[in-house]
Amino acid sequence: MSVTYPKGFRAAGVTAGLKPSGRPDLGLLVGDPSTTAAGLFTTNLVAAAPVRLSRARLDGAANGPRAVLVNSGQANAATGARGDADVLAATDAAAAALGLQPSEVVQCSTGVIGEPVHMEPLLAAMPMLVEGLSDHGGPEFARAITTTDTVDKQAMADAGVHRVGGCAKGVGMIAPNLATMLVFMTTDATVSSTDLHRLAHEQLKPRFDALTVDACTSTNDTVLVFASGAQGADPTTPGAPWWSALEGAFAEVGESLARQLVADGEGATHVLLVDVWGGRTEGDARVVAKAVADSPLVKTAAFGGDPNPGRILQAVGASGVSIDPSSVDIEIGDVRVVTAGVIPPAYFVDGARLAASASVAMRKSEIRIGVCLGSGPGRSRALGCDLSYEYVRINGEYTT
Amino acid sequence: MSVTYPKGFRAAGVTAGLKPSGRPDLGLLVGDPSTTAAGLFTTNLVAAAPVRLSRARLDGAANGPRAVLVNSGQANAATGARGDADVLAATDAAAAALGLQPSEVVQCSTGVIGEPVHMEPLLAAMPMLVEGLSDHGGPEFARAITTTDTVDKQAMADAGVHRVGGCAKGVGMIAPNLATMLVFMTTDATVSSTDLHRLAHEQLKPRFDALTVDACTSTNDTVLVFASGAQGADPTTPGAPWWSALEGAFAEVGESLARQLVADGEGATHVLLVDVWGGRTEGDARVVAKAVADSPLVKTAAFGGDPNPGRILQAVGASGVSIDPSSVDIEIGDVRVVTAGVIPPAYFVDGARLAASASVAMRKSEIRIGVCLGSGPGRSRALGCDLSYEYVRINGEYTT
Repeated sequence: MSVTYPKGFRAAGVTAGLKPSGRPDLGLLVGDPSTTAAGLFTTNLVAAAPVRLSRARLDGAANGPRAVLVNSGQANAATGARGDADVLAATDAAAAALGLQPSEVVQCSTGVIGEPVHMEPLLAAMPMLVEGLSDHGGPEFARAITTTDTVDKQAMADAGVHRVGGCAKGVGMIAPNLATMLVFMTTDATVSSTDLHRLAHEQLKPRFDALTVDACTSTNDTVLVFASGAQGADPTTPGAPWWSALEGAFAEVGESLARQLVADGEGATHVLLVDVWGGRTEGDARVVAKAVADSPLVKTAAFGGDPNPGRILQAVGASGVSIDPSSVDIEIGDVRVVTAGVIPPAYFVDGARLAASASVAMRKSEIRIGVCLGSGPGRSRALGCDLSYEYVRINGEYTT
Repeated sequence: MSVTYPKGFRAAGVTAGLKPSGRPDLGLLVGDPSTTAAGLFTTNLVAAAPVRLSRARLDGAANGPRAVLVNSGQANAATGARGDADVLAATDAAAAALGLQPSEVVQCSTGVIGEPVHMEPLLAAMPMLVEGLSDHGGPEFARAITTTDTVDKQAMADAGVHRVGGCAKGVGMIAPNLATMLVFMTTDATVSSTDLHRLAHEQLKPRFDALTVDACTSTNDTVLVFASGAQGADPTTPGAPWWSALEGAFAEVGESLARQLVADGEGATHVLLVDVWGGRTEGDARVVAKAVADSPLVKTAAFGGDPNPGRILQAVGASGVSIDPSSVDIEIGDVRVVTAGVIPPAYFVDGARLAASASVAMRKSEIRIGVCLGSGPGRSRALGCDLSYEYVRINGEYTT
């Protein structure tokens, strides 16, 4: 049921005709009047028009947003003044159909960068979309926001008396020419927008920041969180009875959606879990973890099932973080392949047991790479996937 | 004749048996007694043992290096104390055979990271290698330093009465498991080691820094420059008659080798020239140029011949450089595809002439992408290549 698992939310998804494929391409999620909202947005400076509008309306406090319109097919990025006018027109139309103020509606878009949103079919579909809203419409909404995702991505968790639900889309920066990771999460707890922002920053941001399919930050990435308060319990604030359960449920749903996103990465056949510890700072550990997960040499080695300690070391040494190579240990699965910066010579002996064990670990569907940088307190994880022929096919064979 | 084109150099290349393939794998380049030297080395903190030794001997001044021994097959990186002992033993042996001080010999290695150098065949081949030295041995030397390079890379240029020659190897960070870009350049001008270092920094460093096959900085990258003084003319110093001709010849040979390297990048079918101008600083322009040339989405688009302005904009916006999106213009070949941050809507009209022209430019063997960031003075160029099935095959299908 994803975003409609918690009480106080209605959702719908329809085929408006924005995508040539004829698949569902317009979704709407609406919370009860008491709903609060928080958001996380792309750091790409070329931010899409809907990202700029949503960010402004979430900062605008007063009548905060409680509805989000999502279209797939066109990203409404690099579209200039026309793009800004289009997102205003679309949210105005949705607000009118819902009987809300325009400031209560935000929009997310995903699809081709630069192509103007097909406004005519979008506006024409609005009555049907609002008509279709229901408290079990989560799956239709989750379907309508996808582009070339091969599976719908949904998750839910319980937090004591409260519920948390979510859905996501994304397969890289892109699909042929398409962009964006979008994540929507809901809860029926009563949470102020300040506390909701804190939950988003503390429980969700690290999990989605750890993701990397192709190191390409989209122009449209958005995480939106809504709390309806419809469960009816006392407000959930830090220190209140349900707070830590709610934190846990946010973390669980966020982690589940992150894993689903990376497993459906374009052409992905393996998930890469890169754990780094012993860094001087958490920031250092994060940079190294991302450098390993983003390395095309590590990613192709993961595709080929080749346990290649030299490529992992190469990525660690070139990450830009100041490290002492002689204090670096590396594991593939549970197999230690680098000790104090040195690959054991036995690794290269024909039929070596060490290499054979590493090879087994490198062929699992989820490959864990552990990197110890030294004795510092900094630790981080990056979540990536391998680089396959299929990634090249999806992104290379497409021609306009 | 590459490195033996200038007077005062002898070179040789032999098959010592370090590589299973049975191809030439040991090279030696020796300059006349008056030879000066300068070097540029990898910034990867996991630097190979031969890199550390060569760097130390080049800084050591007094009896500066005038000979370099190069082995392919093993990179001697992540090999610990044994690696340090091996590079000392190899350069000691070469020095003894040449009648030089050990400090006059440096070493470069390229091949598998972590695997110890096969010292027995290397030492056994030393007499044959020294025996084979000749003043037309440049091509044999150029061949012996390659790993999975598909072509030998050599260049030469005249600088008035002087000559400049060079050779290089490299196909990525790597080849299946192999590492490194190595560049050797020679001149018969009389140049102090200080001035030679200046030539290397001013004329060569920017050209090789601009290169990117897979964004993976090797553990072994090395550029070595030698000046023999054998032409016999007056010392060439900044401001002296031949200085600017020598600068030009260094730039020409460096540029030629850089192009040869990137054109032979693993799986490369197109060369990417990314020119960035109008940046606040040269550093800003360089970061943006590299971000575009390294983007897997731009690289796969180049492979597929897909002119995709959104992917280029995405890379510019996510590069980390502070830019104003509304002042960004982008060209593919001579075709303007983004103006003031906006992709013209006409681009997406079926059969649009704009997209068709961009498509032609995107199918050339050398694809030029121009990015104007604004009105600042910073400009830079990155030299890259596309990302093809073959890159994935080379790096993924190999299994230990």
